[in-house]
Amino acid sequence: MATPVGILTVSDKCSQGQALDTSGPALRQLLEATVNGRQQWAVVTSLVVPDDRTLISQTIGNWSATTTSGPLCRLVIVTGGTGISPSDVTVEAIEPLFAKRLPSLATAMVVGSLKITPMAALSQVAAGVVGETIVVAVPGSKKGSVENLQQILGVLPHAVDTAMAHSGTRHLHTG
Amino acid sequence: MATPVGILTVSDKCSQGQALDTSGPALRQLLEATVNGRQQWAVVTSLVVPDDRTLISQTIGNWSATTTSGPLCRLVIVTGGTGISPSDVTVEAIEPLFAKRLPSLATAMVVGSLKITPMAALSQVAAGVVGETIVVAVPGSKKGSVENLQQILGVLPHAVDTAMAHSGTRHLHTG
Amino acid sequence: MATPVGILTVSDKCSQGQALDTSGPALRQLLEATVNGRQQWAVVTSLVVPDDRTLISQTIGNWSATTTSGPLCRLVIVTGGTGISPSDVTVEAIEPLFAKRLPSLATAMVVGSLKITPMAALSQVAAGVVGETIVVAVPGSKKGSVENLQQILGVLPHAVDTAMAHSGTRHLHTG
Ligand code: NA
Repeated sequence: MATPVGILTVSDKCSQGQALDTSGPALRQLLEATVNGRQQWAVVTSLVVPDDRTLISQTIGNWSATTTSGPLCRLVIVTGGTGISPSDVTVEAIEPLFAKRLPSLATAMVVGSLKITPMAALSQVAAGVVGETIVVAVPGSKKGSVENLQQILGVLPHAVDTAMAHSGTRHLHTG
Repeated sequence: MATPVGILTVSDKCSQGQALDTSGPALRQLLEATVNGRQQWAVVTSLVVPDDRTLISQTIGNWSATTTSGPLCRLVIVTGGTGISPSDVTVEAIEPLFAKRLPSLATAMVVGSLKITPMAALSQVAAGVVGETIVVAVPGSKKGSVENLQQILGVLPHAVDTAMAHSGTRHLHTG
Repeated sequence: MATPVGILTVSDKCSQGQALDTSGPALRQLLEATVNGRQQWAVVTSLVVPDDRTLISQTIGNWSATTTSGPLCRLVIVTGGTGISPSDVTVEAIEPLFAKRLPSLATAMVVGSLKITPMAALSQVAAGVVGETIVVAVPGSKKGSVENLQQILGVLPHAVDTAMAHSGTRHLHTG
């Protein structure tokens, strides 16, 4: 069964209809691609919100809230709001939610993306665990969002498994 | 018009006249070099202070203070005080000033510098936004300061543009 | 004279005798290897504790406590508890002890380990100074612990020297 993912696009312009969200659909296509005859991820929810700390925080809270059948999303990708402008608040909105920070996952995105473009140094990507959900923030551009996610896509299944409280596999490779 | 920069050299020995500040002048030469017939940066102020949190903090505060014509410096390079010794306090002095941390910019410096020397692992470089000014801390040695700044020099013009509150270009590549 | 090191293995299973600690001995072998006819490090103490914040914190506190002859250990390697599981608490236990964070040392471990395996993105390694002792957290697997330590082993002698309050060599390469 595919693992449930949420995609949150953070952009004043997209939320006001002044620009088209191209990153959200591109991330969905990347996540839902069939690899070796299998679809690893299923995007079960997606939303476009403005660059607003409260809306970002509330959406991630809802998507990661634990119910009897687990959280709605095991993985949340946030795209946008990672730049240097004062209006970029994504990292500031999500870091306080982290029960565990995952800086090495962020470093892996930066290191890989820097091989493609030096502009990767200007995106403040981040990753952490909220409840039992992995949350990853990538840049808002279609190109930047896809390039960053590609750097860590292969290890995210294991990350999602180990973030669950009662995983039996968590001591295999890491820890 | 060249963008105004400040260079702050942090060193007990240089401030007491027991050593010559070679990093400050080397950083100035790198910044003010003409590239493609154009000078991107102009060093408008420079200072040597001891390894003192208050003096470091106050200097950056002064150089980034917003006036009607904007801050004195759009970019501040701090050199020195990034080592492991208890007397090294640069990062501890500047991080509390950051309205926004820019860890990817620091990662880019470390990743690039590690290709030159493994000693780069021992310098606690940092970057962030203070007011509308980009502040970057690089090592105190002439070689280390230049090598670190070179890793990010090409993206700093865009960083400075996007750090301004009302930039029209800030959504082009990042965020 | 070899520099005194402590190795702290953090693992519920190893502490309960349900698994063998293979990382601790592997790290010891790596550290005590003779290089150019000289042994740089001597493991003077080692311990296995469960994934428990208080036990991790107390052990590092004891090993780094300053006495008239200096701390028991100049370097402490912590292996284990760096994964994504809720039970992994090593980084959360040691970061509050840091008088100085050494994120570039952690970045060097991640950058080097990512060249060996993308799974390195899932280990939350960390480094910092506690008192005058360098503390480094590496993954719990034998392979991961050794691979991470190898990335920074060459610069650790200088790190240990500069972390001492009255080092005369600390301005040579860094700072
Ligand atoms: Na944005």
